[in-house]
Amino acid sequence: MKNLPFLELVRDDLSRVEALLHDGPQEQHNAVRVALDHLIGGGGKRLRPALVLLSTHICGANLDRAIFAAAGAEMLHTATLIHDDLVDGSLIRRGMETLNARWSPGATVLTGDYVFARAAYLIARTDNVRLVRRFAETLMVICNGEIKQMLDGHHCGFSRREYEERIFAKTASLVALSAEAGPILAEAEEEVVGALRLYGENLGMAFQIVDDVLDFVSDEETLGKPIGSDLRQGLLTLPVLLVLEEEPAHPVINRVLEHNPPTQQVVQDAVQLVAASPTIEQALDVAREYAEQATAALGGLPHSPYLQALYDLAEFTVRRRF
Amino acid sequence: MKNLPFLELVRDDLSRVEALLHDGPQEQHNAVRVALDHLIGGGGKRLRPALVLLSTHICGANLDRAIFAAAGAEMLHTATLIHDDLVDGSLIRRGMETLNARWSPGATVLTGDYVFARAAYLIARTDNVRLVRRFAETLMVICNGEIKQMLDGHHCGFSRREYEERIFAKTASLVALSAEAGPILAEAEEEVVGALRLYGENLGMAFQIVDDVLDFVSDEETLGKPIGSDLRQGLLTLPVLLVLEEEPAHPVINRVLEHNPPTQQVVQDAVQLVAASPTIEQALDVAREYAEQATAALGGLPHSPYLQALYDLAEFTVRRRF
Repeated sequence: MKNLPFLELVRDDLSRVEALLHDGPQEQHNAVRVALDHLIGGGGKRLRPALVLLSTHICGANLDRAIFAAAGAEMLHTATLIHDDLVDGSLIRRGMETLNARWSPGATVLTGDYVFARAAYLIARTDNVRLVRRFAETLMVICNGEIKQMLDGHHCGFSRREYEERIFAKTASLVALSAEAGPILAEAEEEVVGALRLYGENLGMAFQIVDDVLDFVSDEETLGKPIGSDLRQGLLTLPVLLVLEEEPAHPVINRVLEHNPPTQQVVQDAVQLVAASPTIEQALDVAREYAEQATAALGGLPHSPYLQALYDLAEFTVRRRF
Repeated sequence: MKNLPFLELVRDDLSRVEALLHDGPQEQHNAVRVALDHLIGGGGKRLRPALVLLSTHICGANLDRAIFAAAGAEMLHTATLIHDDLVDGSLIRRGMETLNARWSPGATVLTGDYVFARAAYLIARTDNVRLVRRFAETLMVICNGEIKQMLDGHHCGFSRREYEERIFAKTASLVALSAEAGPILAEAEEEVVGALRLYGENLGMAFQIVDDVLDFVSDEETLGKPIGSDLRQGLLTLPVLLVLEEEPAHPVINRVLEHNPPTQQVVQDAVQLVAASPTIEQALDVAREYAEQATAALGGLPHSPYLQALYDLAEFTVRRRF
């Protein structure tokens, strides 16, 4: 995502963030350094750092501190992915092997913990206690969401409300905090903090819905992982939920739900069904509504190229195909 | 440990810490609340909170903030234990089932992550960025130590130096930070921060060596877990290292090293050998030296009942049998 025209404004800042992400402490075990460089270098979209940086420029916050916040947000995101991939047994992400595909569960757990510690350290270096507290609260929301998804049954999220709660916890909470980081660092007025937070929440929801759609209509090469991953893990996302709203006992979907784990053929049939159904466009409509709510939240802020980039980012989020 | 006479001074403070440890947010999943209450209520020694509180009174720091730091230190310790027990496959701790004994690995990973988040939140509530940063640094040291122990071979720690590095990372680093928390919160002079940190480092080393000795000479009921756990996991602690220093090819010890995992009988033979050998007293001598170095660090501080409690705590650490 780094090469998108509207992110040109923060390209140099993003380079500083990259350098910081790869700059582990001396004491770091060499195997961990290699693994982390691999994971961090692996083509994440850097959505969260971009939001920290854009909101920083919009609010006139200290850039040096924002670089730490941006790196911390990405590092925290990376830590949660390491443990999620382990818990889900995912072997491929962003076209690369996950850590748990190569390492023992124990080594993966401990490396994830270490990455959490790196994230906490980066965030603490912003010297802003409010931001540190918000990051800790957000991590609680993320973990609670994951635990709820795991403990409340394999096929949780049958309702739209549960789905929305889940993707809020999983994605929108940290995206919102990234957008909020600039005004918090700048000690901006609470209305500005609230406006950028609201932008981030809605952008995060739109972003995750598009991700969930792409899991049906993209291809493995573009996506960097097998399509239909969510269904294979028994996770019902918006396009499937919309199918079930129309036809609760749909035989093709229900075959997925009856098997644990479902066979390759059963998943493939369901993916094909959903991909060809009108619920793909309906789900994208929901994402577009969230993107509109995101930009609507920005109405009271003075125009600038950085603010324009937030509009462009919202538009890109629902247009992207990767 | 809460009923020790020299901790009477901070008994009320420790009650406030307990309340805070059990006071999870509303959104917390109920199964997690029950599990955490079980884990936290399970008779930990509260060494770290006691140190935060004593050093707080010694330096005249704000007590409300210190309560958060004390709870945060214990919560962080709990989080590392949850993941350690999972990684080591330990089923019993403090006389109770570990989380991984009941829950799936995935649920255990995510709950540990959630407890890390709770710890970070508590620590952030001290409103002291230096302390937050020190906690993050310490967590990096702890994780690095665990990773090193895991990746550098099952029977790592053949040398005294490696053993000391390992127990510094595992225990002394967080004990040191707990002792340092008071002066950091009080914004005391750097000499005072350094003195209490040095006390904590040495106390932590003594504490862990005594733990490692008790793993040979205590009994399962007192210890709250099977004796010989370290050897069973292929972990060589000071009493064994001292045996190997005398006789590097000792057949009974080497039988443990040759088997992975070693049989019950092989471990039992080695435990009996070590427990009856003079290296138990030699290891306790090393612990006593650390305890002396701990109290020596306090020499420049003005006398008070709280300072006396630190002397008593050091003495207790090497005298305790649980």
